[in-house]
Formats: sequence, C-alpha cells, structure tokens
Amino acid sequence: MIKVGIIGATGYAGNELVRILMNHPEAEVIWYGSKSYEGQKYADVYRNMFEITDDICKGDDLDKLSEDADVIFTATPQGFLAGILTDSVLDKTKIIDLSADFRLKDVSVYEEWYKIEHKRPDLLPEAVYGLCEINRGLINKDTRLIANPGCYTTTSILALFPAVKEGLIDTASIIIDAKSGTSGAGRGAKTDNLFCEVNESIKPYGVGTHRHTPEIEEQLGYAKGDDIKLIFTPHLVPMERGILVTAYADLKPGTDEKAIRAAYSKYYEDERFVRLLESGVYPQTRFTKCSNYVDVNVQIEPRTGRLIAMATLDNLIKGAAGQAVQNMNILFGLPEETGLEAVPVIM
Amino acid sequence: MIKVGIIGATGYAGNELVRILMNHPEAEVIWYGSKSYEGQKYADVYRNMFEITDDICKGDDLDKLSEDADVIFTATPQGFLAGILTDSVLDKTKIIDLSADFRLKDVSVYEEWYKIEHKRPDLLPEAVYGLCEINRGLINKDTRLIANPGCYTTTSILALFPAVKEGLIDTASIIIDAKSGTSGAGRGAKTDNLFCEVNESIKPYGVGTHRHTPEIEEQLGYAKGDDIKLIFTPHLVPMERGILVTAYADLKPGTDEKAIRAAYSKYYEDERFVRLLESGVYPQTRFTKCSNYVDVNVQIEPRTGRLIAMATLDNLIKGAAGQAVQNMNILFGLPEETGLEAVPVIM
Amino acid sequence: MIKVGIIGATGYAGNELVRILMNHPEAEVIWYGSKSYEGQKYADVYRNMFEITDDICKGDDLDKLSEDADVIFTATPQGFLAGILTDSVLDKTKIIDLSADFRLKDVSVYEEWYKIEHKRPDLLPEAVYGLCEINRGLINKDTRLIANPGCYTTTSILALFPAVKEGLIDTASIIIDAKSGTSGAGRGAKTDNLFCEVNESIKPYGVGTHRHTPEIEEQLGYAKGDDIKLIFTPHLVPMERGILVTAYADLKPGTDEKAIRAAYSKYYEDERFVRLLESGVYPQTRFTKCSNYVDVNVQIEPRTGRLIAMATLDNLIKGAAGQAVQNMNILFGLPEETGLEAVPVIM
Amino acid sequence: MIKVGIIGATGYAGNELVRILMNHPEAEVIWYGSKSYEGQKYADVYRNMFEITDDICKGDDLDKLSEDADVIFTATPQGFLAGILTDSVLDKTKIIDLSADFRLKDVSVYEEWYKIEHKRPDLLPEAVYGLCEINRGLINKDTRLIANPGCYTTTSILALFPAVKEGLIDTASIIIDAKSGTSGAGRGAKTDNLFCEVNESIKPYGVGTHRHTPEIEEQLGYAKGDDIKLIFTPHLVPMERGILVTAYADLKPGTDEKAIRAAYSKYYEDERFVRLLESGVYPQTRFTKCSNYVDVNVQIEPRTGRLIAMATLDNLIKGAAGQAVQNMNILFGLPEETGLEAVPVIM
Repeated sequence: MIKVGIIGATGYAGNELVRILMNHPEAEVIWYGSKSYEGQKYADVYRNMFEITDDICKGDDLDKLSEDADVIFTATPQGFLAGILTDSVLDKTKIIDLSADFRLKDVSVYEEWYKIEHKRPDLLPEAVYGLCEINRGLINKDTRLIANPGCYTTTSILALFPAVKEGLIDTASIIIDAKSGTSGAGRGAKTDNLFCEVNESIKPYGVGTHRHTPEIEEQLGYAKGDDIKLIFTPHLVPMERGILVTAYADLKPGTDEKAIRAAYSKYYEDERFVRLLESGVYPQTRFTKCSNYVDVNVQIEPRTGRLIAMATLDNLIKGAAGQAVQNMNILFGLPEETGLEAVPVIM
Repeated sequence: MIKVGIIGATGYAGNELVRILMNHPEAEVIWYGSKSYEGQKYADVYRNMFEITDDICKGDDLDKLSEDADVIFTATPQGFLAGILTDSVLDKTKIIDLSADFRLKDVSVYEEWYKIEHKRPDLLPEAVYGLCEINRGLINKDTRLIANPGCYTTTSILALFPAVKEGLIDTASIIIDAKSGTSGAGRGAKTDNLFCEVNESIKPYGVGTHRHTPEIEEQLGYAKGDDIKLIFTPHLVPMERGILVTAYADLKPGTDEKAIRAAYSKYYEDERFVRLLESGVYPQTRFTKCSNYVDVNVQIEPRTGRLIAMATLDNLIKGAAGQAVQNMNILFGLPEETGLEAVPVIM
Repeated sequence: MIKVGIIGATGYAGNELVRILMNHPEAEVIWYGSKSYEGQKYADVYRNMFEITDDICKGDDLDKLSEDADVIFTATPQGFLAGILTDSVLDKTKIIDLSADFRLKDVSVYEEWYKIEHKRPDLLPEAVYGLCEINRGLINKDTRLIANPGCYTTTSILALFPAVKEGLIDTASIIIDAKSGTSGAGRGAKTDNLFCEVNESIKPYGVGTHRHTPEIEEQLGYAKGDDIKLIFTPHLVPMERGILVTAYADLKPGTDEKAIRAAYSKYYEDERFVRLLESGVYPQTRFTKCSNYVDVNVQIEPRTGRLIAMATLDNLIKGAAGQAVQNMNILFGLPEETGLEAVPVIM
Repeated sequence: MIKVGIIGATGYAGNELVRILMNHPEAEVIWYGSKSYEGQKYADVYRNMFEITDDICKGDDLDKLSEDADVIFTATPQGFLAGILTDSVLDKTKIIDLSADFRLKDVSVYEEWYKIEHKRPDLLPEAVYGLCEINRGLINKDTRLIANPGCYTTTSILALFPAVKEGLIDTASIIIDAKSGTSGAGRGAKTDNLFCEVNESIKPYGVGTHRHTPEIEEQLGYAKGDDIKLIFTPHLVPMERGILVTAYADLKPGTDEKAIRAAYSKYYEDERFVRLLESGVYPQTRFTKCSNYVDVNVQIEPRTGRLIAMATLDNLIKGAAGQAVQNMNILFGLPEETGLEAVPVIM
C-alpha cells in the first residue's frame, strides 16, 4: 500500500483527494493535514466521513510527514509549499503539489502573476508539469516533484492541444471563454462566495488577469514550439462543480473539419479519460461530474470558418484531486485508472 | 457474475442502477430495458455513459429476459409489473421491483391508493418487503420477488423504527414532515418539474394523500404489532437528490433521551449503512449524497418533551437503486455492502 | 415626504428596505447607515443601485440622524439598538427596529435566549410588536418604537393565529416545521453559508433552541390569553428567499374544516396582504416572492383529524423590510399598501 | 388608459408582461389570451396573481380583440402571428410582436432559419425593429407593427453597437459567447428543461445554428452599413433569469481604450436603461434582475489588444416584456420609463 499524506485535507480539493483515495485499492491516507482544524476529527469537519474515518487532523509538518509517507499531496495556498520544501523532504518522499508553486518554469512569470517571491526557484527545472495525457512520459520512479495543473488550465489545454500541436490553427487568434462552478473558489469564508451572492447569477471575473493564463500559454507554447499570447476569460456559474471551456481560433489555410477531427482522434482515441464526442454532440459538465473524464468536441463554425473547441471536466477531479491521483498512479507504476474508474454521476 | 436485467433503465433510478452495477464486482448488466428508447444506444440517452457502454436499449419482454437474467430489476410505473408478471418468469429468475406493486400486503389498500386494479394479488403474500435493515432475515436463496421500498418510506421508517419497535412513543401522535429533492418526481416531461417551476421555491404537496403513507403505516404497524394511522406531509425542495424526514411523536410516560438513544443504538450500531449521529448533530442530505448511507438522529425537544427523529438519505440510492442492489446482494449471499461502498459526495 | 434613515443598510434586509423605499411615493432615504462600508458609495456595495443612487454610506450615529429623520429603521445585530437608544432620540424621531431587541416583553426571556444583557428594559412596555394584521390598532402617531417581527415568527403566527384566537386547537399540541431560504442567515461571511455548503442540501438547525421560538409563543399566547409552549423546528433550504411553515395541531372536539375555514376567513378576508388560498391549493414560496403577501391555507388531515396549517411569505419583505414599511405607513397615517403593491415575481 | 390585449399570456414572457402592466399607471390588460388555458382563471395558472386578477383566459381571436384593444402584444410561437395577421387588424390596433416573425427584413433569411413559410412578407418593410435605444426614432403614432427584439439579440447588439457604429472594430472578427438562464427556453414541458437536467450543469447549444444569429448580424450590419458574419455561441446556465454576453473583436488600428469608452459614452450616457459600468467593473446578471436595465462594459484585453465587450440584462424584461412595454410607451407618446422603473432585485 502506498502511504499518502495530505497537507490541506480540509479544503474542497483535499476532501476529494480523501474520498478518491478511500476507494483506491493501493493507497491509504496516513496524514490528514489541516492547520485550521488540527486536533479535530476529520469527520467532524466533513460529516460525510462519519464512521468512515476516525482520524484526527494533523498540522503541516512536512518534514515529519516525509518520514512516513511515500507521497505527499499539497493542496495549499500559493507560496506555501515553495516556502517550506527542503531537499531533505524530497530525498525521503515524493511531492504532488496541487498549488501553482511549481507549474511555471519561469520564476519571473510566477512572481509577476502571483505577487509572491518564489523561495525555491532552483526546483522549477526538476518539477514535472503533471498534465498526464501530455506529459506522462516525463514521470518515472525517480521523479520527486509533480506540479499538478490548474482546473481551468487542464480544460483549456486539452480543448486545444491537438489543434496547436498539429499546427492547424493560428495561435495568435486563440480566445478561451471559460465557465466554472463555485467550488473552484475554495472553502474560504468570503462574502462573494455566499449562496445568496452566487446563486441565480453569472459573471465574468479576472478579465485579462486570471493566473491560469500564463500556465495555459506556457503549456500550449510547448506544443507549438513558440510563445503564445491568448485571451482567457473566466466566468463564475451558479453550480458547485464543473468547468466548460468554449475556445475559438482561426484555422490555418487549408484546414477542414476532417483534418481537425483526425488530429483530435490521433491524440485522444486511446486515452482512457479523454472522450472525443461524436460530431454535433456538445459537452455538458454534468456528463463528467464526479469522474476523471474530460469530454471534448470540435466544430468548424459554418459562417466564419473558425474552429470552436469545447471541453468539460469536473474541476475537483480531473481538474484537481483526480489528476493528482492519476499522477500518483503513473509515479508508482500503477495502471493510470486505478481508483479513478467512477462512472460520471449525472446529478 | 450475476447476470442482471433492468426494465426501466432510462429513468433516474434506472440510471443509478446501471451506474452502481458498473462498479459492482459480481454483477453485470445484460439488458438495458427502455420501451421509450428501444433501439437507441443507452449512452445516447445518458451521455455520462459514453465510451463506458455501447449497449442498445431493449424493450420490456420480461419473458425473454428471464431466460438469461439471474435477476431482473423493474423500475417501472405502478401497475406495470403486476400486469405482466407470470409464474413462468418467477420460476426462471428473481425479481426486485422498484415500483409499488408488491409493497402493500392488502390488495384493497393498494387499489384504493393507486386507483389501479391489481392483476396479481396472489403474489402479495410471497413478496418480501425489502427494507434490508429490518427484513433481511426474510430473504434467502428461494425468495423470488422482492418489493423494494419507496424513498420516503425508507427514510420515514428508519427514522422511527426503534422508537416504535421498543414501544417508546405514542404511535397515534406520529407526524412525519418530509422534504425531497426533485429527482423523486422522475424524468417525465411535466411542466411542474421544469427548472423554472422548481428552482427557488419550496412547496408541500399531496397533503394527506401521498401514496407512501399506507406503506409507512403498514411497516411501522408490523413493528408495533398493531395498526397505525399517522400524518405524512411531503414537500418538494429545489435540489436534485436527497430526502430529509423530520418526525415528531409523544413519548410514552417515563421515556427519556437515554432510553431513546439506547433503542436506536440497539438497532443501528451494527448496521453498515445506518449511521446514528452523535447527540446534537443534525443530519444534512449532502452528507449521504451519492451513497447508500442513512443518517439518523433523535432528540427530546426540551420545551414540550416530545421526540424529534430525523433521517436523511439519497433518494436515488438507499431510497431506490442502492437498496435494490443491497437486496440483490442478500439474495445472492454476497456481503451486503458489495458494490455499495461509495463514500458520500458532499457536493 | 417622510425622511427615512436606515442603520444597517448594507445587510440583505437593509438592501430590500432601500429598494422598497425607492418605489415609495411618500418616503425618501436620507441616510444609508453602514458601519462596515462607511464612506463608500452605496452603489459600490450593491451594484444594482448603480446610477440609481449616488449616496455615500454613513455610520451609525443615531443621535445625529434623529435630528433629520422622521423615522429610522434599524436592521442591526441583536443588542445594538438597545445599547445606543436614548430618550432624546425617541423624543425626536420614530424607530422601527428590525432586530429582536424590543420584541419580547419579558426581559428575562430575552436575556435567556439572546445571552445579552438588555440595556433598555424600561422601553419594552412601550414598544409595539408590529405584526400589522394583528396589532395595527396599537400603532398611532404617538407611537415611538415599533419592534418589527421576525421572519419565521410572522409566518408561524399568521399560519396559526385564527385557530388559536378562536380556541379551535389544543395549543399544547402545536408543532411548527419551518423551512427557510438562505438570505435569512444574513450577509456575514460564514463557511456554513457558502454556495457549496448550502446548495443541493437541506438540514434542520437550532432544533428546540431557535430564538424565534419564544417570540412565537408570546404572541400566540396573547391570542390564546394564556401561556403556550410549542415545538419550532427550522430548516435551511437551498434557495435565496422564502419561508414555508407547515404547522400541526390537534383540533378541539367538535371542530371541523368548515369552522376552521370560517375562522381564517374572519381574520383574513379583508386583509390586503394575507391571501387565504382556495381549499386544496397549497402555498408555494415562489407565489409570494418579492412581494408583501402571505399565502395561507388550512386542511384537516383525513386520517388523523388534525389541523395542518401552511403559510408562505418572502422573508426579506413581509418577513422584514416590507412589514417594516407597512408599519411606517400605519405610523404616518398612509394607506398600508403604499409602496408595497408589487405583484409577486414567480422566478 | 391604454387598453392592452395579450396573446400568449401564460408563457413566461406573457406572465412578465402581465406583471409589468399591472404596475403601469397608463395601461390595463383587457385580454389574457391563452389557447392552452382558455376558460380557466389566469390566477389558477399563475398563482402569484391570486386576488390580484380574477380574469379568465381567452383565446387567440385577434380580429375580435382588435376591436377593443389599443395595442396587442403577441408572445406566440414563430409563424403564428404572420399566419393570422390581417390588414383589418392593423387598421384597428397596434401590434407589438415578441416572436421573430417580423424581425428579419429578408424573408428568405427568415424562411431559411425558421424553416417556416412566411405568410405576410409584404408587412416586413413596414415593421419597425423595436430595439428602443437604437430605433426609437422610427416609431411614431402611425406605426402599426413593432417587432420586439430577441433576448440574446438585445444583449449582443447593445454590447457591440457603439464599437460597430463608430467603426472601431473589425467586424469580421466578432465572436459572441452568450450565457442564458433557462426561462429563455420557455414553459414547454420538455425533458431537456427539467430541473434535474438543467441544475448543476452548463452546456453550449445550437453552436453555429442559433436563430438569433441572423438577427444580430442584420442589425449590426445596419450600424456598420454593410453585411456582417459573426460567431454566436449560446450556453444554457442553471439559473432562471438573466443573459450575459461576452463578446470579442479585433480593434481597428489606432483604437485605444479611451476611444472605445468615448464611443460607448456617446451612445449610452443619456440612456435611462443602459448603464455603462465604471472601468474594471464587470456586469453580473443579478444586478439587472427584474429590471429593464442593461449593464455594459468594455475593456481592452492587455495581452492581445483585443476588445472584450460585456453586457447583461434580464431576458424576460429588457430581453422581452420590458422592452415591449418600452416600445408601447414610445408608440403612445409616454415617457419611456413609465411602468418600468423597478429597481433591480439582487436575489
């Protein structure tokens, strides 16, 4: 059994990690880390866990935890992990980080977007960006640090990757209009996230300034082999889970729908968790809910001849905890779908 | 592997049956019965199943199905099963019926409440009322027909059973105020169930006339050993899943909170799926969501000295498909929790 | 024009007061009091008011405000008004208090339930409990202090008042099962009120301990002419606005449905804002939404012969701001419906 | 008093028309037309109207109605009005049509998109497209037929009109990503619009094929003075009311944010119902809810230099019934805001 520690186990992504790992046949949670609830029963914070676990929340002593854990998931605020991660910890255990600390290779980009000094820029080259479908080949048993991608990022990249990789679109024209449920905003007690502020309303936010923008640009840039600048507009939707991305781009001359579908099939037809929908079927967040699936489809808009690429996933699973477990599976040589085979729940 | 047929696979309870059985290690669905969608791919009706099953919806030929299936779940309208069930079918297979056709032992009560002539009253004595925690002892390998309880019924009975069984309350005083999500109303295209009619509103309905009333009365009557008449008031809540029952009753003289808790502990402490909450903790539907758990608690109201018993469950799981699978497990000698170990999903 | 000051203008009830008063032909808001947002534009807090008012939030200087205001609404935390209210203020202006400070006549009951020392118990005898339909006769131009009733309280009392007043029910048997939208919990940034904690779930809370209990008991006690103890169980429903009360009581011998309906007609048929629904029609919160209406109905449960009384209203309007304005209209000799004629909005 | 007839009074837009007209000081509804509910009390269909109107639903006899009504609102299915409208009717009364029948000037475009033969193409030249802020000058006392714009259309056009009219953007680059609440889908009993299908999910639909596309293109084409082809992608959001449009376009060389804001100010600063938000403030549907306001803002995306134009409104009010009443006000020489002064309701 893989011994798993979680730092940040009482956030929403943390709770999903716990839930997924409880159904994982090869892993067990040995440390429910939560600074805020240290000393309290985990099941008193999340009563869905009553009679399922009696464990007590522990703190964030990464060093101590690294003695016992085979792998540590950190679902912590930006800057936290970079601030406490030591070489000694990395010598003893593996880290899968759900925060943004090791996602961007260029420390100056990180510091510009997150307004935080990065304490361990020396570890950036070593960290693997864990978007499994693209980078699984970079992960092996010697990998020490995996940067688990953001939720918007995973959706956006998977919506556009084949088109960019195969050079079928003009990357300067990319517009990503993204819509997310509210769990992505976390469990912090903020007025903006109250039921009465969120329900029955939709709004754009962080227009031109959302922190997932450079992460999408960097990863799609690798696919293209050159820098990309794009528009990313997130919106808050009155629902708990789910992200939908609707992306637009100009096609390169001579590209038709057949070529586009062929490219998407090439990259996704053998993927366990990416489902390329049939032509004319549009993704809906509820068809990926509570699962690790990503539903993708593409269409040439008939009036303007542009590409519309759509993708949905569950932001807490494939967009966070599920992908983190998928990365763990790769890291430990397990089949990628181990513990992640839940069928989507439509409601 | 247990070969399972489902008649009514495209209703909400049917979809949950499919989803649960896909994760069941000892069962496989061999027949997706759906009169309305016969000939269409099941995954075209429920796109969460895309790339998970390619099966085609079949009709409702119970006779043909009984040749191949070890067990048949019928999630069909009231009167349907009683209208087509033959002895020949029952000789070849087992039936677990999610409709009300075989729940009430007294055919005149059935016909009064359902306004339907019962076509097979002769089978009523044989049918086992499959509220597992109470009647599992009545199910064995020779059982041919199990009447799976209603959703409101399961919640209401489990909220009150220990108090009634132990004679701690005046059964003439029982009031059950129940609140249900909208999936209980089914997938029929009715104006009343449109998003814009349901959302942002709560309403009572079927006051004094809801069909689960005689079912609750009959089963609690067995616990008491005498007839019971009670008030049952259902309400529709703007959410998809979940039932909450708040029940009220006068205590018998001399009964205190300690005696009440002892009674509930006696019946529930060894139950895998019934969780008696700690004193002062109230059930919330979200803590049983997408699981087979029932959360129960009891409290003596301090000002009036009456019992308040509360229970929650997921109406599509413990209130329908999950309990049906639990009954199947008992019927086939499997551990009751087989395929039902999903941890509740809080959102 | 009546000059109105509001202390607590940035809470949800405060915002509704502002909105209602903007459509009131005889009143104008001269003071948007909000300690938290003092110095900010009101329309920056509530952007629905953009280009409608440019006013700046002021503080809570009741004394200064009383110089200019003909009436002051206080939508403030419990204990606040009693802590600052002076005789000098009451000599200069009228107070309509939306908090609980002056609702209970017995200071010891207040202090027991609110765990606060009451600073002005001497004013309790003078304060009028402003449930307009019952107490409008107690309000005249010399009234200085009106205690605006609570939202659960208004719904509960109006559901049961005629039955209690006419002596048709056994008051010892009253059970009030209440369901409320989330705006009743206020705009405070609490984890429990986040969208992801409230949505898709229903829960009871404050069972046997909710502070509206003694208020209901006191007022129904006046109707009866004797003390009443009852059960009041509130539930949180995943919607923004609306309260539904389902109340149960044993009928006095000889009381039938005709007598019950006659009693309700007697008190409500001439009321502008109380609608006694037709027999067999159940109230739904959405049919009173955004209006000052209360929908009421009664039914004798056929199996047990008990009374079921149901009532709905919009907790922010008839349950708070609307009733406060109704009280203001009475106080200033205006027709009660002035500014309150909005037709309910069904969605 | 203007005598108003409504054909289609029991749809969602029809109900809003009734509600708005009840608060209109210069109009009264004399005909609640509803084929489906003919002979039933209007308040039995919409119980929010109980004790507010006792009127009975009538049929769709336009000819008879035209004898009595000063103006008739038709909130009817596509093709209906064109199928029954006669010159005799137009000689006797005014028509404000909320369907699409007279919105598109080119009958072949209508027939292509709506798959219906147009029965009165001869009336198309005469019909005024009633987007009040743009075309109010075309409406006078002799106007007989106003085509009230679609909800997506009004939002999209108002989001982009100043930029197109002033020639600041490359119209070939326009992408409109629109998000709508569910009331836009109407009150028909369709499975897709059930609570359990809509809630907790977002989806695109009609990608490249939505019927509001040619309407937007035609009207923006008039602003430009030339044909426009654009991308319009609608999405269904789990809420009842509200539309948000996020539109993208390339700027013409030399255009900066100052020029853009100046253009929007030029057209909107004197508009009663269009609010150009302050820089950096993004529209939210809830801030226009239940009102006739449209909130608009524009921003130059910093990374790509493109325009992002955003607009929100209430699809049932400014997107349907409210704008229809605004057109009526213009037609009858009343101040445009008459009966439309409701302050937005944030929840």
